[in-house]
Amino acid sequence: MKKLAVLGDFLEPHHHAQIDSTAARCGFAVDYYPDGHVPAELAGQYEVLYGMPDRAALRTFTSLKWFCGSFAGVDAYLDDALYPSPDVILTNSSGAYGVTIAEHLIMVTLMLLRHASAYVLEAAAHRWGPVLPMRSIMGSTITVVGTGDIGTEFARRAKAMGAKSIRGVRRTMKPADPAFDSVHTHDQLESLLPDTDLLVLALPSTPDTIGFLSRRRIALLPKTAFVINVGRGSAIDQPALVDALNAGQLAGAALDVFVQEPIPDGDPIWDAKNLLLTPHVSGQLSLGYTRDKNVALFCEDLENYAAGRPLARYVDRKIGY
Amino acid sequence: MKKLAVLGDFLEPHHHAQIDSTAARCGFAVDYYPDGHVPAELAGQYEVLYGMPDRAALRTFTSLKWFCGSFAGVDAYLDDALYPSPDVILTNSSGAYGVTIAEHLIMVTLMLLRHASAYVLEAAAHRWGPVLPMRSIMGSTITVVGTGDIGTEFARRAKAMGAKSIRGVRRTMKPADPAFDSVHTHDQLESLLPDTDLLVLALPSTPDTIGFLSRRRIALLPKTAFVINVGRGSAIDQPALVDALNAGQLAGAALDVFVQEPIPDGDPIWDAKNLLLTPHVSGQLSLGYTRDKNVALFCEDLENYAAGRPLARYVDRKIGY
Repeated sequence: MKKLAVLGDFLEPHHHAQIDSTAARCGFAVDYYPDGHVPAELAGQYEVLYGMPDRAALRTFTSLKWFCGSFAGVDAYLDDALYPSPDVILTNSSGAYGVTIAEHLIMVTLMLLRHASAYVLEAAAHRWGPVLPMRSIMGSTITVVGTGDIGTEFARRAKAMGAKSIRGVRRTMKPADPAFDSVHTHDQLESLLPDTDLLVLALPSTPDTIGFLSRRRIALLPKTAFVINVGRGSAIDQPALVDALNAGQLAGAALDVFVQEPIPDGDPIWDAKNLLLTPHVSGQLSLGYTRDKNVALFCEDLENYAAGRPLARYVDRKIGY
Repeated sequence: MKKLAVLGDFLEPHHHAQIDSTAARCGFAVDYYPDGHVPAELAGQYEVLYGMPDRAALRTFTSLKWFCGSFAGVDAYLDDALYPSPDVILTNSSGAYGVTIAEHLIMVTLMLLRHASAYVLEAAAHRWGPVLPMRSIMGSTITVVGTGDIGTEFARRAKAMGAKSIRGVRRTMKPADPAFDSVHTHDQLESLLPDTDLLVLALPSTPDTIGFLSRRRIALLPKTAFVINVGRGSAIDQPALVDALNAGQLAGAALDVFVQEPIPDGDPIWDAKNLLLTPHVSGQLSLGYTRDKNVALFCEDLENYAAGRPLARYVDRKIGY
């Protein structure tokens, strides 16, 4: 019988049952390694790997044919040299995180528009805060870079809350969810920035997206704009964003991802003005829905794999998505 | 020509133009008092008053026939003795605040579910916060007490975000917006509390609603429940809520209104566990949409008044709504 290893501690008993029964149907026996570590002498027996393995350990899986990461951003796993063979198939769990990250996006959008951080800090100091001018999602013009699962789930929610216009920006011109009022390509972004109230970045990290929101592009946003990033920190010229925030050239930002994580002591990003900073938690795996979806997507691709069909969440390591 | 006084500083130039033209059509001349104060020697000339007058000043408006409060909660204006005559008609601006308060409700719901206060405080201390277990609106069972404009705008948004069930609770059994999966009366509330994930109070303050969420009712909620109040502080037995929070009998609460405002120094509510506290700002007038709607509703009722039709936002001072 072929063997499958599942690495990580996010599984509940019903997920084990679901993986076990799918694997049995597909001719696989399953071993679980909740601490993520597979002893080197056992690694060679596994044809399939699902979860969050240490990058450096991948080469010890000498029989590996398919690795499914239980996360969406697989940029750390693109190098062929990490694998025992360049033929190992890489898939991700894109599609599991849309709901939780969309809820994060709606939350931080409203927190920026309604000064929530200021009120939290005032209340912690036992102060009855001042009345501060608020803004609304209703009537806002929103630009979402990345029209995949995350961007789409966010666009649907922002639409339901009355956004005036939601423009999706993607690499290539293809139709997107009807929640997007229009779709544009990356090279059209700059024409959209000057009337953007809220710029949301939900980009995978690929060679193309490093420094995507450059100093020049930040300067095209109005002073009243907010920037939100839930993709990868590398997509933003972080020093340029800090400069713009501190100079009042932007109304604020909410970042869940950073160039370096955790943020180092003394990094100026800690003290940037009107910055709502969360420690890369928008898409973490504690939410039941995310775990359920993650396992369901893997099981779906396990059935595809066993039947010799293409895998739904295949990642081309050369282009990064 | 009959005279109308507008009190308060929330009007922008286009609001003045809108009120002026409506008033002219209705046979009224308008005077504006941005600071809210009308000299006693002038007060007697006004038949209609719109805005936020000092309670004690109302009796000086000796010709007053109609007072429209530019707010939704008119509980401080119910006493007949405040008026020069018990025949003065009272209306409110219910309907202007649904959007802004619904956005507040979605924001604080997500902040509770996703530990936003903890992350704001960690970031302010330059600490990269821990991963904390998150929950979702998707799949939640929500009980909304008050199915008017505020409750309805919130229900629509929560529905769009995937809530499993939204139960509306109101005084009398009448149909409500389709965003409510079911409608119940106040006397059925207690049967809904044990499986409530999120209890939202959007009640007017009337003699019936004082202490509405009693110690006994709080005890019927599961330990995993959150309580949110945007109506009036008097609707909750506040010491009982503080006890429940501190004892871990509730997962958390978000209060925008309190028994005493501003909260006094030393009040135990300042230090209640898992309490997100905002200083009565969910329905403040800084948001353009709220101002626009407020003025539009007044102008609509001014047309009704001039034509001798019933006023759309009439408040019966005996029952308080």
